[in-house]
Amino acid sequence: MNYAPTPEDRFSFGLWTVGWLGRDPFGEATRAPLDPVEAVHRLAGLGAWGITFHDDDLIPHGSAPAEREGHIKRFRQALEATGMVVPMATTNLFSHPVFKDGAFTANDRDVRRYALRKTMRNVDLAAELGARTYVAWGGREGAESGAAKDIRAALDRMKEAFDLLAEYVTEQGYDLRFAIEPKPNEPRGDILLPTVGHALAFIDRLERPELFGVNPEVGHEQMAGLNYPHGIAQAMWSGKLIHLDLNGQSGIKYDQDLRFGAGDLRAAFWTVDLLESGGYEGPRHFDFKPPRTEDYDGVWASAAGCMRNYLILRERAAAFRADPAVQEALRDSRLDQLTLPTLEPGETPGRLLADRSAFEDFDPDAAAQRGMAFERLDQLAMDHLLGA
Amino acid sequence: MNYAPTPEDRFSFGLWTVGWLGRDPFGEATRAPLDPVEAVHRLAGLGAWGITFHDDDLIPHGSAPAEREGHIKRFRQALEATGMVVPMATTNLFSHPVFKDGAFTANDRDVRRYALRKTMRNVDLAAELGARTYVAWGGREGAESGAAKDIRAALDRMKEAFDLLAEYVTEQGYDLRFAIEPKPNEPRGDILLPTVGHALAFIDRLERPELFGVNPEVGHEQMAGLNYPHGIAQAMWSGKLIHLDLNGQSGIKYDQDLRFGAGDLRAAFWTVDLLESGGYEGPRHFDFKPPRTEDYDGVWASAAGCMRNYLILRERAAAFRADPAVQEALRDSRLDQLTLPTLEPGETPGRLLADRSAFEDFDPDAAAQRGMAFERLDQLAMDHLLGA
Amino acid sequence: MNYAPTPEDRFSFGLWTVGWLGRDPFGEATRAPLDPVEAVHRLAGLGAWGITFHDDDLIPHGSAPAEREGHIKRFRQALEATGMVVPMATTNLFSHPVFKDGAFTANDRDVRRYALRKTMRNVDLAAELGARTYVAWGGREGAESGAAKDIRAALDRMKEAFDLLAEYVTEQGYDLRFAIEPKPNEPRGDILLPTVGHALAFIDRLERPELFGVNPEVGHEQMAGLNYPHGIAQAMWSGKLIHLDLNGQSGIKYDQDLRFGAGDLRAAFWTVDLLESGGYEGPRHFDFKPPRTEDYDGVWASAAGCMRNYLILRERAAAFRADPAVQEALRDSRLDQLTLPTLEPGETPGRLLADRSAFEDFDPDAAAQRGMAFERLDQLAMDHLLGA
Amino acid sequence: MNYAPTPEDRFSFGLWTVGWLGRDPFGEATRAPLDPVEAVHRLAGLGAWGITFHDDDLIPHGSAPAEREGHIKRFRQALEATGMVVPMATTNLFSHPVFKDGAFTANDRDVRRYALRKTMRNVDLAAELGARTYVAWGGREGAESGAAKDIRAALDRMKEAFDLLAEYVTEQGYDLRFAIEPKPNEPRGDILLPTVGHALAFIDRLERPELFGVNPEVGHEQMAGLNYPHGIAQAMWSGKLIHLDLNGQSGIKYDQDLRFGAGDLRAAFWTVDLLESGGYEGPRHFDFKPPRTEDYDGVWASAAGCMRNYLILRERAAAFRADPAVQEALRDSRLDQLTLPTLEPGETPGRLLADRSAFEDFDPDAAAQRGMAFERLDQLAMDHLLGA
Repeated sequence: MNYAPTPEDRFSFGLWTVGWLGRDPFGEATRAPLDPVEAVHRLAGLGAWGITFHDDDLIPHGSAPAEREGHIKRFRQALEATGMVVPMATTNLFSHPVFKDGAFTANDRDVRRYALRKTMRNVDLAAELGARTYVAWGGREGAESGAAKDIRAALDRMKEAFDLLAEYVTEQGYDLRFAIEPKPNEPRGDILLPTVGHALAFIDRLERPELFGVNPEVGHEQMAGLNYPHGIAQAMWSGKLIHLDLNGQSGIKYDQDLRFGAGDLRAAFWTVDLLESGGYEGPRHFDFKPPRTEDYDGVWASAAGCMRNYLILRERAAAFRADPAVQEALRDSRLDQLTLPTLEPGETPGRLLADRSAFEDFDPDAAAQRGMAFERLDQLAMDHLLGA
Repeated sequence: MNYAPTPEDRFSFGLWTVGWLGRDPFGEATRAPLDPVEAVHRLAGLGAWGITFHDDDLIPHGSAPAEREGHIKRFRQALEATGMVVPMATTNLFSHPVFKDGAFTANDRDVRRYALRKTMRNVDLAAELGARTYVAWGGREGAESGAAKDIRAALDRMKEAFDLLAEYVTEQGYDLRFAIEPKPNEPRGDILLPTVGHALAFIDRLERPELFGVNPEVGHEQMAGLNYPHGIAQAMWSGKLIHLDLNGQSGIKYDQDLRFGAGDLRAAFWTVDLLESGGYEGPRHFDFKPPRTEDYDGVWASAAGCMRNYLILRERAAAFRADPAVQEALRDSRLDQLTLPTLEPGETPGRLLADRSAFEDFDPDAAAQRGMAFERLDQLAMDHLLGA
Repeated sequence: MNYAPTPEDRFSFGLWTVGWLGRDPFGEATRAPLDPVEAVHRLAGLGAWGITFHDDDLIPHGSAPAEREGHIKRFRQALEATGMVVPMATTNLFSHPVFKDGAFTANDRDVRRYALRKTMRNVDLAAELGARTYVAWGGREGAESGAAKDIRAALDRMKEAFDLLAEYVTEQGYDLRFAIEPKPNEPRGDILLPTVGHALAFIDRLERPELFGVNPEVGHEQMAGLNYPHGIAQAMWSGKLIHLDLNGQSGIKYDQDLRFGAGDLRAAFWTVDLLESGGYEGPRHFDFKPPRTEDYDGVWASAAGCMRNYLILRERAAAFRADPAVQEALRDSRLDQLTLPTLEPGETPGRLLADRSAFEDFDPDAAAQRGMAFERLDQLAMDHLLGA
Repeated sequence: MNYAPTPEDRFSFGLWTVGWLGRDPFGEATRAPLDPVEAVHRLAGLGAWGITFHDDDLIPHGSAPAEREGHIKRFRQALEATGMVVPMATTNLFSHPVFKDGAFTANDRDVRRYALRKTMRNVDLAAELGARTYVAWGGREGAESGAAKDIRAALDRMKEAFDLLAEYVTEQGYDLRFAIEPKPNEPRGDILLPTVGHALAFIDRLERPELFGVNPEVGHEQMAGLNYPHGIAQAMWSGKLIHLDLNGQSGIKYDQDLRFGAGDLRAAFWTVDLLESGGYEGPRHFDFKPPRTEDYDGVWASAAGCMRNYLILRERAAAFRADPAVQEALRDSRLDQLTLPTLEPGETPGRLLADRSAFEDFDPDAAAQRGMAFERLDQLAMDHLLGA
């Protein structure tokens, strides 16, 4: 079987992924900087479809206007030469020391205003380059100690920022939605909007919720011990899964950003199964960090592995869903019943109360005898995953 | 200083807390059953204000109607004799084997209908006893394996159930709101609506969201490594903190239900600080389990400890907020600036773009020099917490 | 490919695994009791080789001597009829309320003496039935609060207990070694000897360390976020891996005891790779709990799945090690160099200091350029695991 | 009460703690470099007794010999001027890219030899400056993927390195012991010797175990969800607690290095209680990172807070142990019985078997009725901790 990616697979990568230099909390960079133009060409050569960026990935912080234009021009030429697209962009509101206490929720008001302007500037570039999604990861919006942040005031400031940005893209007529990316902690002790759920709830309180969705990252949810496929399923159910970050994480610890498939492989399988069967139409975006043990050969091997693993899992998930034995097992586990409404059409509380079969004549002890047959079903999934 | 609780403190306890027999996954009960009437008298004697219950705590599952009435009558008499109130009730949708795959989201439709009827029955009793909050903990709504539950279908069923219940209390004219209690896992591998955020987002998609709020439990959020005060702050910000479960948990592990104050003491301090200064008006409800090492003397010591610790922390939090040195430290950390809107009144994107001081003339390197002074502030909090 | 287990595979199961009734902290039993004789026959039919037990699994607590003999006799007959062996036995020192504060380290001295006697009695039976390993899981040896247990005194008591037991088997001439099973928490807030490392270090301080080893359980190490294959590798390196418990766990949470292969599948692959290539000769023992959603059909499906997954992974690991591309990749990652001593034969500190190539003439910047090629190697492992 | 530290308190700090620049995985340095000489003077002024260092903290990597001597000379003068001592030193085997795959267990043999030489060089300096402890934290000894490291071969290499170093200090006649510092992960996916237990077990297999002990760090054990006081109690019990790193950590997540007292305050209380009452005579060494939100005023406030919190907790622990009500409660919880041997003097297995009171006449049901009274005891501890 051939697992060679093509642009039809809609795989995209952040410039900061293959471009990560390997600097970590305890060590210096292990790789030399990568020219964004080379990244575009290399990823295109591997079969990727799109590339994404933070403003500072493409245009070093503090570049003069002419330099800025030069960086953008070269990048655009690489896109044209390769056919690569820019489906998403985002703002770096975390690297510069000025953001040490946050950006949209920094205690210092001037920092908050600067963060908004930095974002608006890159929103313009994102729209210009054709991006349809603008990701917002508030990695510095948080605290290490209890009095350092008044959370309700901070959420007011966060709402104010996103309402202004939504007003801006509306005024400008940009065809762009914002995707909020949750994370529970690191680099702050606790980060605001720590999970997919918190972000969804926050969005519901914005002035233009229709311009917002979420960008859940595999590892970020798993850092809170949460089930990633369950999280994106709730986002889909809420109509808010507009983008996502695929990578790997080995349990609750520091943010690992392993290549997709590494870490919790079974969760990766169910993720692909859900994306492919659940109507998700956005990019398959990888947000990973090639380990700092690797040189650039390893970087490209790691990037290729992300796509390869997705394609293998896509094949396995499709076979799982198509297998008649699986379909029978799903019925044995009464998944078909779960799709049936609990109530009769138009059934009122009163009519439910009048149905003696639902309560007075229902024998819970007898009903409890029915096995759910989940172990057999799950073993079928395992067999398909392993190609056994 | 006297830390004796009084009914004005609005402390309430679940019948199932002091009544827990000590049966755990590896061991048998270590205590004999506790008569609910005795629980009411004992807790009243300790200074508690209210008592809460699952249907099956008060009326053993399978009681005949006359027995049921007898249990209710005795309980009512105890309430009257002591002046204790019932601010909240809830349904046991997890102990009986029939709920092994869930209640409102069980794959078996008849189980779902039975669960609704069991809930409606106890909602009637809750209203009759004057409860204003009806808690819904869906402890069995979840899965251990990926294909066993279609999450989006399950959320449809969950919504259907809550919409029906909201219709029911509306029709009946009950003055009762539902409080959804999140939990990430245990007893299921992964539970639906795993955190405060997920529950808030779910509520927004119900037909009558105004009848719903959340009931966050300290330990449940901490089992996902989340900051409990942050979680309840977002619930407050959303207007949805209508009840809560206070207890203790020592980090990410099995659900411990330690007495309040045990586990993460600093989080307990910030929790009390937020509840007392943040306008929370609901009960201070303890949902804990006296360790199974204890006999009933230990049970009452543990219950008394919950209240005592709350009162000590309330005193310390009040002193912290009143201390002029703290107020100055808060200003040094620019908490006052966080309450100021980021934008000028009526400021549009265009006007923000025109403000050169926000970007073109802003010097991020200079601004980054300002220390946030959080360590001094946090040490003041520590000093107040410790009474040093 | 056929993955049918045979006795040559040395698969064993605890009576308490397939016999688990499904009672958990929030729910009642969902299955009727299983006759140990039926368990033996069923497991033999599935291809298992051995069966293990706690005293109370086989002989209900409090059985009169004649009843006890009857239970043993029936069990023995089932073993003879099926050819199943008893490679291991263990003591239940956790279910009865008398052990609520521990067994060998209970504060109450009479409980400690009773625990020793209960253990000695079952050691006799274990030896009689031919077991070579006696597992000791001290699930209740721990505490929920800081003053409740003096840890150093408790370790003294633990040592005293194991020294006595070792003296006993020596005197009796039993060919039996003890395998200590670590666990970090649950059912106690913190358990003594929480990891493989702590147990190994404890053993070194016993009077007869040669009679002791460890019995690491997959899920127990993963509940502390530790890498299971790394843990058993250190146990092997120490000459102390004499038994092990295979199961599955989905990260840091309550003890799940999923079937082997479920949970962290990649860790399962590396576990099998290490056991098969590393010279482990003990039983492949499964200590899992078929989920309480299952009836007995599900129980047997789950047990069969444990063995099937082991066999699939064994096949994949063997193919991985045999693949010339893998062998080349291992060399590219310099695994061959890791097996070479760092020092020359007989090299002293002085001679190392005199080797200028090791320091003065070594160029760390140049050496740091070498990529480790781990991503390619790991992708080859992924391909073999997935059969891609 | 005055909580001013003095040299008699034996508080020491790493140069790298107050000297941390605030660079983290997502952000640039927020503070300018701190001259080691200033660090010595400042810490002395705050009441500290000692200072510790990695080679590269004091002498920038790559310094020429004359520069090296200059750095050492200035540092020595600062020590003399202030009376500060150097109780411990350590090697930086993690920052330079050459150590990306480890130091003593790097796959590349030349890296391993270089790491040994780098260590020997700083061991000389440590001895020259009067250090009695040499800490070894193998932060890069580990892996992110399963085939990248043969754990048993790596442990062979680790043993070889420590045996050589022990031979070296013996030959040189240095009065110096090595303290191995465990950590479960970060910066590697999994690190060798992940907990106190694993390190203790490893030491037992060295050629000169008497020259080795452990250096447990609060946060490192808590990153594995382990109870820190339990861990150091086992190290004490093994005679191996020769140094330790005090700091704070808020649960299982990235390594936070909060100031001592922050994070799990109750664990900090029990830690101080154990150190002060348990005969620990080593330094009280703080290994923390002042948050990057802070300027240098915040750095010194944070360092002062570490010592202040220790002194407050020392006062509270002493009052707890001296309180007659506590002593009575300890007896009520039968802590006195735990210190009694389980066996009679010289009691053999045979005599224990002959004691009918231990088994035949022992009534476990009756014995199980005794409550352990731990909740009252723990509330007394809480009261003392809070000064209530």
